[in-house]
Amino acid sequence: MVSVYIIGGSGYTGGELLRILERHRGVEEIRVSSRQYVGKRVNTVHRGIEGELTFEKYDKRVAEGCDFVFVCTPHTKAMEYVAELSTRIIDLSADFRLREVKTYEAVYRKAHTAPELLREAVYGLPEIHRKEIKRARIVANPGCFATGAILALWPLVRKYDIKEVIIDAKTGVSGAGREPNEKTHFPWANENVIPYLPVGHRHIAEMEQELGIKVFFTPHMVPMSRGIETTVHALMNTEVEDVKKAYEEAYGDEPFVDVVDWVPTVLEARGSNYCKIGGFSQEEGRLVLFSVIDNLIKGASGQAVQNMNIMWGFKEDEGLQQLPLAP
Amino acid sequence: MVSVYIIGGSGYTGGELLRILERHRGVEEIRVSSRQYVGKRVNTVHRGIEGELTFEKYDKRVAEGCDFVFVCTPHTKAMEYVAELSTRIIDLSADFRLREVKTYEAVYRKAHTAPELLREAVYGLPEIHRKEIKRARIVANPGCFATGAILALWPLVRKYDIKEVIIDAKTGVSGAGREPNEKTHFPWANENVIPYLPVGHRHIAEMEQELGIKVFFTPHMVPMSRGIETTVHALMNTEVEDVKKAYEEAYGDEPFVDVVDWVPTVLEARGSNYCKIGGFSQEEGRLVLFSVIDNLIKGASGQAVQNMNIMWGFKEDEGLQQLPLAP
Amino acid sequence: MVSVYIIGGSGYTGGELLRILERHRGVEEIRVSSRQYVGKRVNTVHRGIEGELTFEKYDKRVAEGCDFVFVCTPHTKAMEYVAELSTRIIDLSADFRLREVKTYEAVYRKAHTAPELLREAVYGLPEIHRKEIKRARIVANPGCFATGAILALWPLVRKYDIKEVIIDAKTGVSGAGREPNEKTHFPWANENVIPYLPVGHRHIAEMEQELGIKVFFTPHMVPMSRGIETTVHALMNTEVEDVKKAYEEAYGDEPFVDVVDWVPTVLEARGSNYCKIGGFSQEEGRLVLFSVIDNLIKGASGQAVQNMNIMWGFKEDEGLQQLPLAP
Amino acid sequence: MVSVYIIGGSGYTGGELLRILERHRGVEEIRVSSRQYVGKRVNTVHRGIEGELTFEKYDKRVAEGCDFVFVCTPHTKAMEYVAELSTRIIDLSADFRLREVKTYEAVYRKAHTAPELLREAVYGLPEIHRKEIKRARIVANPGCFATGAILALWPLVRKYDIKEVIIDAKTGVSGAGREPNEKTHFPWANENVIPYLPVGHRHIAEMEQELGIKVFFTPHMVPMSRGIETTVHALMNTEVEDVKKAYEEAYGDEPFVDVVDWVPTVLEARGSNYCKIGGFSQEEGRLVLFSVIDNLIKGASGQAVQNMNIMWGFKEDEGLQQLPLAP
Repeated sequence: MVSVYIIGGSGYTGGELLRILERHRGVEEIRVSSRQYVGKRVNTVHRGIEGELTFEKYDKRVAEGCDFVFVCTPHTKAMEYVAELSTRIIDLSADFRLREVKTYEAVYRKAHTAPELLREAVYGLPEIHRKEIKRARIVANPGCFATGAILALWPLVRKYDIKEVIIDAKTGVSGAGREPNEKTHFPWANENVIPYLPVGHRHIAEMEQELGIKVFFTPHMVPMSRGIETTVHALMNTEVEDVKKAYEEAYGDEPFVDVVDWVPTVLEARGSNYCKIGGFSQEEGRLVLFSVIDNLIKGASGQAVQNMNIMWGFKEDEGLQQLPLAP
Repeated sequence: MVSVYIIGGSGYTGGELLRILERHRGVEEIRVSSRQYVGKRVNTVHRGIEGELTFEKYDKRVAEGCDFVFVCTPHTKAMEYVAELSTRIIDLSADFRLREVKTYEAVYRKAHTAPELLREAVYGLPEIHRKEIKRARIVANPGCFATGAILALWPLVRKYDIKEVIIDAKTGVSGAGREPNEKTHFPWANENVIPYLPVGHRHIAEMEQELGIKVFFTPHMVPMSRGIETTVHALMNTEVEDVKKAYEEAYGDEPFVDVVDWVPTVLEARGSNYCKIGGFSQEEGRLVLFSVIDNLIKGASGQAVQNMNIMWGFKEDEGLQQLPLAP
Repeated sequence: MVSVYIIGGSGYTGGELLRILERHRGVEEIRVSSRQYVGKRVNTVHRGIEGELTFEKYDKRVAEGCDFVFVCTPHTKAMEYVAELSTRIIDLSADFRLREVKTYEAVYRKAHTAPELLREAVYGLPEIHRKEIKRARIVANPGCFATGAILALWPLVRKYDIKEVIIDAKTGVSGAGREPNEKTHFPWANENVIPYLPVGHRHIAEMEQELGIKVFFTPHMVPMSRGIETTVHALMNTEVEDVKKAYEEAYGDEPFVDVVDWVPTVLEARGSNYCKIGGFSQEEGRLVLFSVIDNLIKGASGQAVQNMNIMWGFKEDEGLQQLPLAP
Repeated sequence: MVSVYIIGGSGYTGGELLRILERHRGVEEIRVSSRQYVGKRVNTVHRGIEGELTFEKYDKRVAEGCDFVFVCTPHTKAMEYVAELSTRIIDLSADFRLREVKTYEAVYRKAHTAPELLREAVYGLPEIHRKEIKRARIVANPGCFATGAILALWPLVRKYDIKEVIIDAKTGVSGAGREPNEKTHFPWANENVIPYLPVGHRHIAEMEQELGIKVFFTPHMVPMSRGIETTVHALMNTEVEDVKKAYEEAYGDEPFVDVVDWVPTVLEARGSNYCKIGGFSQEEGRLVLFSVIDNLIKGASGQAVQNMNIMWGFKEDEGLQQLPLAP
């Protein structure tokens, strides 16, 4: 049984962590901090959470005393917490995802104040780094777009000699966080498709680091609450059956990645920690394939719990068995 | 450990039963029939279900050999299955919800072919009939609108002398079932509010039977996939704190009914077996209050599993602990 | 040809006015002020507006020189502008809708600083007050919920002796305005039904003033961008054909109110200035009927232009001929 | 003043034609046929249409006597009507869009029964073929995806030497037509992204014919009723200002194409005949740009009316002046 501490738990990733950890059979104590809501019951913010759990003021000693600390603060803020704690940490921000300080600083335009920990931290995508995660003290939980894209491409880049790929992603609005703004205002986000960054999205650096190829990436926001659909366009010629086989081999034993015979859709992953990959199609000159995930679960808090399970030795799917909610 | 059999499992209630029962720790075997999809893998229809489970042709002897049979066929068809089986049955159709044959035949405009079982069947709303459910062989699982409405009114009618009430309900589109039609076609259901039966909805008979008062009821379809919001307008004067207290007393020990301090919204129940009741407001001449449920869970398959748990002696929330998915 | 001035044109009602007036054949000049966006092109805010129109700083003399001033500021602010201008004014705020100062101050909890103009102002619902509108200098444009409710009830209260009525309304999210907040954040408003004021909505005072009966009113927000559906529950017995006839007689010559043979839905009004009324149903003890409007058009800016047309002598539907956009 | 005849007017394109033509000041008579709804009032199907217009049985002589015939039947059926009529025809199906019989038959897998008319027909994209449209008797109205894609690429392929391009499109559900099916069932289409054809969409042939380059194209269905967003990924290096200039020059005089300074979104075109193009972005190795249209207007019926206006000599925007409806 473990105790966990969530720093900055009032956002969506905090809410999802609470939703999952409240039902995790290996968790005996949960504490959660928030600057804005100190002293307020958690369910005044996350209405679905049952019980009396209350946001508290962050207290380093309390956090230090817990088996796991989940850091849910924005990037640049997260590294301060990580630097001062010596317990097991799963950081949901971007601060420890990039191995090179230089890359981090180029992408996030801030100095990294704990560069010595960058090498210690493990990129928390279990399908690629399970062994390192098992031994890690600090896990950098991947970005939501990065999760969808890397899982969609990993078997391909291992097997084929690829230099570059085009990724066109579509995300639900919760990907923009819990803070209301003009773009997430219902009458604007609804009945709309909003391409929100033609080039230069920050998750590209994670993708390129893990995949080792050039990634052209453009994300779009579509009118749904949750989910990411990732379409991969690779200008290459393959035997599509070989491609599929490579994916089945790579993910055959994975508890949360399904290689499917059809074109997967977001609803097949929504509400679950699953990633579904399929729709492998080759035409003269282009290979196309698709992945879907729930951006808040496999793309954030579910994957964080999966990492905790691996680090502690719980069954990897503990707390995460829930099947997709469709419709 | 129990074995379960689902008759007619290709619809939404069947899909939800499978989603829940696949993760129920007391279920060791699931079988599922469908006329339309015999021989097809379940996840060709319910994409989120993992594994090899396959629709089979209905076989009375196999069903009879299971500990529980869930009947998910349309009303009038369901009674045929119920009549020929002697195992424990949870019927999700309307066929055994009304105690009086006459009422059934007036509402459903069909002869009831198993009237002798009507008295044996128990109306499966645990908050009112838990004791009878425990001893029952046949449980008639309540209608989705009836669940939202009866739970919203039960403590009120017990405490106050009320003759009639107005209920205005709003449902997600999944309430119309899995069969596509003009009303559920996305471009018509989206950006729309569709009042779909001004008067005379069939669930009114259940509500009046259980509540013992006259119910004026009008349901509306709104552009969401899941959920029912029920607004109760009662032309009466009360002390609103007394009303709230009556609800807290009635539901204080209930695992799945929360009386809340605010006006509940559908997202607070979505994806869970919870019913949230709140927003108690009194103005001169009218009392208003609200309930929310997930129409496919507390309004159908979740409640069916809750009934199974009670009948068999499982922990009542086994398989149903999942917290609401919001957003 | 007229010149018009819009005060506070950066919100949704301002945007809709611009959309309509840009295509109105009797309007030769449009000017628009905004405190927040002075000097910015209108289409940086209202992206669909073509051309070079730019927000300017409010200038009393310029406004005064226009044939019509549309006031789109919040209530309590609007009365200041109205008080200082002597040209024709259509006020889209609530400041001049209520005839009695006392009522205004009770409802809006602010002192009314121009009470002498309250009697001069005409309530701008053409179907009831067309004659007075024709002669008016100041028109108080009705609230969106009030428009849907009063049109739904006017013929009924004229013909029958009714003391009270229950109205349950469902609105799209644009009714909450253009300013983002927690309730209008897409992931919260989507897949949700949010009852947003059990009792005491401010538009009730307008409804009671115009209808002369007690109104019990509860509005709900549902996941659509535009539209209001109004369900009227009247505890009374009628001959439903007589009711329908009363509506057909009342609205037979109205350019924008259709009495229909079916249950109308929001899509049948969306994008247009029409109000559709139908679904007349009588059961023992209750009469039910429904109206639908586009909250931003007939419920706000379209009706404002209709009032302008009446005041100036344009064809009443000039600029408003557009048929509903469905889907 | 012209008379028009719509063949097969019960679908979405028929409904939109009616909505537009009813308000077109140059149209004095509209007749509309439907096999399924003969004798029924048009507004039993298209609820927003006012008045008494009634679906009639197709009568060749009546159609022949009209100035314009709009053919809204499915492809392969349309060519039969086109072949037997000698009046002006605007065919909204795919039957006359491809200049080569061979291509048509390869793409649509049917023999073309009127190949001699293929050369007579003009591809009805006014921005490219205005002159030929003016003289044409038969206009083949472009496909919705083709319109969004060709307009997004035309200036680029004229100026730069490009061999191939990747297009990733997102469409609203109305693009799938008015017939309900599993994919358009609200609970499936909602909260989902559905890639509906990885490779081989039929509109590709139109795009390649008009653009003269290889087109890699994958469309996705997202949860909105209307609109197409088209994202162009071109693996090339340019000066982005030069690219933009090329678009401004190409479309500077176009009444319905706006080159904008920002990344356009679907709401900026919805409900209008406009196409907005923008978001020009160059990174090392890839140029990205975006277009948005309303699939039922510029992508279908609005463009058809634009073609009629050009053919007859009406003002090109007659009936189409309506600005986008946002929200």
